[in-house]
Amino acid sequence: MTSSNSYRVPGFLANGVHAGIKADGRPDLAMIFSTSPATAAGVFTTNCFKAAPVLLDLERIRSGEAQAVIANSGVANAATGAEGFADALAVSRTASGELGIPDEMVLVASTGVIGHRLPLRKIQEGVKGLVAGLHDDGIPAAEAGIMTTDRFPKIACRNAVVGSKEITLCGIAKGAGMIEPHMATMLAFIMTDADIEHNALDRVFRQSVDHSFNAVTVDGCMSTNDTAIILANGFARNPRIKKGSRHLGRFAEMLSSLMSELARELVRDGEGATKVIEITVEEARTLGDAQRVAYAIANSNLVKTAFFGGDPNWGRIISAAGSAGIPLPVDQVRLFFEDVPVFSGGKGVAGREAELAGVMNKTQIRVRLGLGMGRRSWTVFAADLSFDYVKINAHYHT
Amino acid sequence: MTSSNSYRVPGFLANGVHAGIKADGRPDLAMIFSTSPATAAGVFTTNCFKAAPVLLDLERIRSGEAQAVIANSGVANAATGAEGFADALAVSRTASGELGIPDEMVLVASTGVIGHRLPLRKIQEGVKGLVAGLHDDGIPAAEAGIMTTDRFPKIACRNAVVGSKEITLCGIAKGAGMIEPHMATMLAFIMTDADIEHNALDRVFRQSVDHSFNAVTVDGCMSTNDTAIILANGFARNPRIKKGSRHLGRFAEMLSSLMSELARELVRDGEGATKVIEITVEEARTLGDAQRVAYAIANSNLVKTAFFGGDPNWGRIISAAGSAGIPLPVDQVRLFFEDVPVFSGGKGVAGREAELAGVMNKTQIRVRLGLGMGRRSWTVFAADLSFDYVKINAHYHT
Repeated sequence: MTSSNSYRVPGFLANGVHAGIKADGRPDLAMIFSTSPATAAGVFTTNCFKAAPVLLDLERIRSGEAQAVIANSGVANAATGAEGFADALAVSRTASGELGIPDEMVLVASTGVIGHRLPLRKIQEGVKGLVAGLHDDGIPAAEAGIMTTDRFPKIACRNAVVGSKEITLCGIAKGAGMIEPHMATMLAFIMTDADIEHNALDRVFRQSVDHSFNAVTVDGCMSTNDTAIILANGFARNPRIKKGSRHLGRFAEMLSSLMSELARELVRDGEGATKVIEITVEEARTLGDAQRVAYAIANSNLVKTAFFGGDPNWGRIISAAGSAGIPLPVDQVRLFFEDVPVFSGGKGVAGREAELAGVMNKTQIRVRLGLGMGRRSWTVFAADLSFDYVKINAHYHT
Repeated sequence: MTSSNSYRVPGFLANGVHAGIKADGRPDLAMIFSTSPATAAGVFTTNCFKAAPVLLDLERIRSGEAQAVIANSGVANAATGAEGFADALAVSRTASGELGIPDEMVLVASTGVIGHRLPLRKIQEGVKGLVAGLHDDGIPAAEAGIMTTDRFPKIACRNAVVGSKEITLCGIAKGAGMIEPHMATMLAFIMTDADIEHNALDRVFRQSVDHSFNAVTVDGCMSTNDTAIILANGFARNPRIKKGSRHLGRFAEMLSSLMSELARELVRDGEGATKVIEITVEEARTLGDAQRVAYAIANSNLVKTAFFGGDPNWGRIISAAGSAGIPLPVDQVRLFFEDVPVFSGGKGVAGREAELAGVMNKTQIRVRLGLGMGRRSWTVFAADLSFDYVKINAHYHT
């Protein structure tokens, strides 16, 4: 498996344009398109208030096939009722008409202000240029079209040889919070030319989401629009990857690696984030216990502000872990900042201040909590909590 | 039931002094003392990493009796191991010796930096002046002794006639976050001259904590030291309040009213708080559902920053409610800011901007979410999330 800097996947075209949804002239409409029907899988927000595009995709993804994704930024088309659903359908129809493919083969996604209708006429106008400009090196343009408060684009690619054929995986993603003021949503679109059976794709994609996007947190909030989609068009002509085939593990590893890279980039670009905290909870009795304790730490505002302030405040981490609702054997618990022990045997470890000062100056910091209860572990990547987070999310008005 | 501005409870003495724990000369040691043994109940943090004073109190409160509480601010005596427990015991022994009462009748509490040992000699010296200065109007001095980052004291009293005898209830509390940087802890000490059976007191006290301190949140964090204690010394000579007696309901109402007042003051004085948001989730199927949705909203950083910014951002409230893990009937859900409807029938209610601007200018704002599922409801009081919260909690170093 190698990383790649050329953002091309055989059989995929992409593009991004400014359709006039955003007032500032930045790109706000994006498309990825497979020149032939692709195997498709998707993971969507579990929020009860699912945005219209999510509701439409949930219907369509069941077929296991898709050929295009059209996404807009600026307006989320969430909390817009039946009218919003009709708008999502209208966007899809405009795209399928322009592409000349069955409408059911189009998936849609939106990110932006909640509670506003899409500017349908602008989008319908914009789709023409979007489709006309589709090209095989258009992935960065598509990424630009889905960014909201993102400070930098998130694109990652992987190549590997499967059964003497080279396969390629590229993904784009936008964050980053949940969320800008109303600018809800994590979106990720992954393209691959691998030939892979639908059931196998669906399974490894869900697992990869769990270990990547579901293992990062900026503010613990889940959006109405979160969407991750993968399209696999088989252009690589590799021996078909199936459940139980020896290539599936390799493909899953590539996919997880790619998505983890995108997920870490989301955190690094989290709203106001100045540091990425890698929190590993190990020696848990169950995976669920490890996750619960890890998220209790990762979403603690006291922990997050301490990291922002550069304070090696292990007391807050211990306190957050202890309030996760899982009985912990206090005397067995050990906490490390990088490899420096800070808590052990029920009390703090004295005399490591100089080493800790060095650790706290880093922009990515590993924290490791051993529970002394079992063998399961979980890692979550979290952003710190800064003045800028408050500024971005408070100083914006509807 | 009447509120009272004289902070005296018959048979109780109190005091607060500076023992030298805090560097800035402010009071840091407090005592409340009943001149005869009192019926006692306590509610303590459920955090696994309980501070030494909490561990000691948990042993002692089982007797159902106590006569004094000694509390210090500045150092939490948390994560201090066996030495910390011995320190808590030493503080108790110094106090009981000075007071001339059995050591088991003393309860202890601490709030302040986690992971540091108590300055025992300073405290032992301070106890002499603390006890010598005990007086019947010393409640405000005791309150001063337990404050950390609190901007104002929290003291509340209630009077009522029970069986032709007047009974008095006074309480002091400190917050306010959880927490200052390491300055963990909510402490509350309630004194009453009511004569009440232990089982009845224990039960109504736990219920009152649930409806007051457990129904407020500043940052969703739970400290290692949270402690609420009530002492009832029977000086009022009222007909003894027992389980099933007609006076129990009246006493419970007084106690809940008093503790709710203290709890709301904690939120109003939450670190960096500029607004109190009163969030009521109603028409839930179960109380647990109502609580879960209410806390999901109250602890959402996106909701809290929106209120700080004065933005009537109902999309974030809906989104937080929808991610609480409870299936909600989207089309039945209705959301109100004060009495202004903002979400109904699966979409936003347009045209109420002028009214909403007025609502957002208030410093206490009611938000009401009807789930359309049942008849249970829960109210939680939350603080907003401001620059000052980040400042207080980031810019402090160990």
